[in-house]
Amino acid sequence: MKSMEIRNVKGTFDYLPKEQQIRNKVTNCLTEVFESFGYLPVVTPTLCYYDVLASKYGGGAEILKEVYHLSDQGERNLALRYDLTVPFAKLITLTKDLPLPFKRYEIGKVFRDGPVKVGRNREFIQCDVDVVGVNDVFIDAELISLYIHAFNKLNISYTVDYNNRKLMTGILQICGVEEEKMTSVITVIDKFKKLSKEEIKKEFVCCGMTEEQIEKLYEYFRMGFDGILSKFQKTDNVMLQEGMKELREVQNYLTVLGISENTSIDLTLARGLDIYTGTVFEVFAKNSKMTSAIGGGGRYDKIITNFIDDGQEYPAVGCSFGLDAIVEVLNEQKIETERNFVDLFVIPLNTKSESLMLANELRKRKIKVDIQYNERKLNKILNTIDREKIPFVIILGEDEVKNQKIVLKNMLNKNSYEFAFDDFDAISKTIREF
Amino acid sequence: MKSMEIRNVKGTFDYLPKEQQIRNKVTNCLTEVFESFGYLPVVTPTLCYYDVLASKYGGGAEILKEVYHLSDQGERNLALRYDLTVPFAKLITLTKDLPLPFKRYEIGKVFRDGPVKVGRNREFIQCDVDVVGVNDVFIDAELISLYIHAFNKLNISYTVDYNNRKLMTGILQICGVEEEKMTSVITVIDKFKKLSKEEIKKEFVCCGMTEEQIEKLYEYFRMGFDGILSKFQKTDNVMLQEGMKELREVQNYLTVLGISENTSIDLTLARGLDIYTGTVFEVFAKNSKMTSAIGGGGRYDKIITNFIDDGQEYPAVGCSFGLDAIVEVLNEQKIETERNFVDLFVIPLNTKSESLMLANELRKRKIKVDIQYNERKLNKILNTIDREKIPFVIILGEDEVKNQKIVLKNMLNKNSYEFAFDDFDAISKTIREF
Repeated sequence: MKSMEIRNVKGTFDYLPKEQQIRNKVTNCLTEVFESFGYLPVVTPTLCYYDVLASKYGGGAEILKEVYHLSDQGERNLALRYDLTVPFAKLITLTKDLPLPFKRYEIGKVFRDGPVKVGRNREFIQCDVDVVGVNDVFIDAELISLYIHAFNKLNISYTVDYNNRKLMTGILQICGVEEEKMTSVITVIDKFKKLSKEEIKKEFVCCGMTEEQIEKLYEYFRMGFDGILSKFQKTDNVMLQEGMKELREVQNYLTVLGISENTSIDLTLARGLDIYTGTVFEVFAKNSKMTSAIGGGGRYDKIITNFIDDGQEYPAVGCSFGLDAIVEVLNEQKIETERNFVDLFVIPLNTKSESLMLANELRKRKIKVDIQYNERKLNKILNTIDREKIPFVIILGEDEVKNQKIVLKNMLNKNSYEFAFDDFDAISKTIREF
Repeated sequence: MKSMEIRNVKGTFDYLPKEQQIRNKVTNCLTEVFESFGYLPVVTPTLCYYDVLASKYGGGAEILKEVYHLSDQGERNLALRYDLTVPFAKLITLTKDLPLPFKRYEIGKVFRDGPVKVGRNREFIQCDVDVVGVNDVFIDAELISLYIHAFNKLNISYTVDYNNRKLMTGILQICGVEEEKMTSVITVIDKFKKLSKEEIKKEFVCCGMTEEQIEKLYEYFRMGFDGILSKFQKTDNVMLQEGMKELREVQNYLTVLGISENTSIDLTLARGLDIYTGTVFEVFAKNSKMTSAIGGGGRYDKIITNFIDDGQEYPAVGCSFGLDAIVEVLNEQKIETERNFVDLFVIPLNTKSESLMLANELRKRKIKVDIQYNERKLNKILNTIDREKIPFVIILGEDEVKNQKIVLKNMLNKNSYEFAFDDFDAISKTIREF
């Protein structure tokens, strides 16, 4: 049997209890925030037809290189989902008579066969909220406020950058950038914060920009939103008009809500290439080694519209939380967990049945109880309990059973409490109130 | 773009909010029970090396036909996990210095490329608890009590059948069944409850049993546990001795715990072929159309021992809950959800910013709030709220904002309450207490 080496696949991990408890804390917190914003839970399949997954970007896109292919006994051409957005669009397409707007959240694993690095594994959990059927940036602002709720609740300091893709496209049109060059020009603009002026220029030249275009692009994308607003006050470019109006509206909502602090407009933020059509935003952790975004999203009015293809518009906007990145940030804070996951440890001394009965009664009352199963010296057991910071212990011997009395010992403050054996309510109350 | 048909893969499903809320209710309830029994959360990878997954059954087993194969850019021979037991064994093998006993639960998707039928999809959620490092049927009995906790909490009537594989093997040895015929003979015994005596005999003949063996097997496996105990009181077959002792112990624990009602020993219960080594059990829903098990498990002392292969024993026992089957049973009960998932619906009349601000303050107080985003006639909105059984509504007009007063209306009992606009604590208290 043992000729084969037991090992994990590169870029996949076992999450052990200590780490998984933090991960659950994050997903539970996000679930609570998503639900408080009226987003409903859905779960979509992991297995998908390859052609359906590939349709989003029309093929050839970078992401498709990272798709895991497989087939089944029916020789279907399948793939593992690489995000939760295409499955969401598919669900909307396949569900007849869905009342719009439809707001859903999904927390689930996605798979990418790409380079493995910190915060980017071969399989990872995405936490997404999306809404379809609202064509008003009111909800774009609400999504930014959802981020702020969530990160406040998680005790993570953040900054939110936001922008509008119509505004970006409008400026490119004014600079005379041809349709077919836009994607590559936007890629360069996305690098403004990282590269020097010389490097930017070189890249623009590679995109086929003229000297004059480069000067304009460089000027406009560095003048800030107020600069753009005053310079293009009277523009007749419809894209730019709409983009400025929408971005202004989002900005106003954030101000009125009193959450504009730690948010800022970044005119160079593109966030991917093809799918976004309006507002885009990205969240970063402050004071953290984690430099990639811990969340991001935006408006994508075309994907579901193209999927359904019935002549109607299906505007959509959504955002995503990166669980791995968030956990990285929380791990930096190194919060010492004060006590064990388990509340009470019961040690049977020749009283297994009674100990199990006692444990089960307390478990019914939502106390987390573990039991000593194996024979072991009492002082060794107590040492382990001390080291593991389990707060309460009950040693149940034959005398205790005979006298129907038990002693509950608090291992952290060394207090002891005596109870009648069957006063389960009082025992659990003492444990719960500590 | 639209030359391709949007569709789901056979045997995979989108779970929409109504159903997913029930599914979440079940997994949340199970999580709470698992944690109250001191099981810790872990998450293991979905992608595995094929040879590691296949090692459990040594190849050739039925399950391996149903494994999804895939490969990555490194041309590794990978597969999707088909259960959570092999990943658990792998985790134990790969984690150095894990203190034993180690108790974990995992709730996650598994994949099987098999025939699709009711309660058996291509991808489905398993909810497993397992413990490694306890060689005492005390914990086997505790796992049966865990089932009882969980199904009581879920309001599902159940019956638990249990048995012991050592006892079964012992009887086969006494009947002179050769080692290599045991697997096929056990398969026949597993069908005792379904087939007639004639059919059973025919199948035993196919397994190469003699007339005498068949008569004995038929007699012994139908005499009940008490019959076996008295007939084989003085047997010198070690397997049978141990099996009788262990089964008796489990029975005693259940009696002492007062949970022997709805549990019964079934000497023909084998539960799969290869992996179980001691106690086995299976749970069925009472008064339900769901005739397959809604849970089951048992002791498997060899798998992890073989995986680690360091000369030590790693006894293990675990059980599994079938989410799909449990949800089927709950759906039969057709519990009418009395109120909507959302607590409060805010309707802005020219007051979007203020409405969002109000909503966010209540969301911070854990109220689930949705907002009317699109322009729509007020009476149509109110009709929808009525139909959807959303309990509370606030209509926020410009007058309300000006006077800093709001009216909270209970749509179910038609009461109204007036509040100062910023008395968010009082508003959320009224909503929460309904």
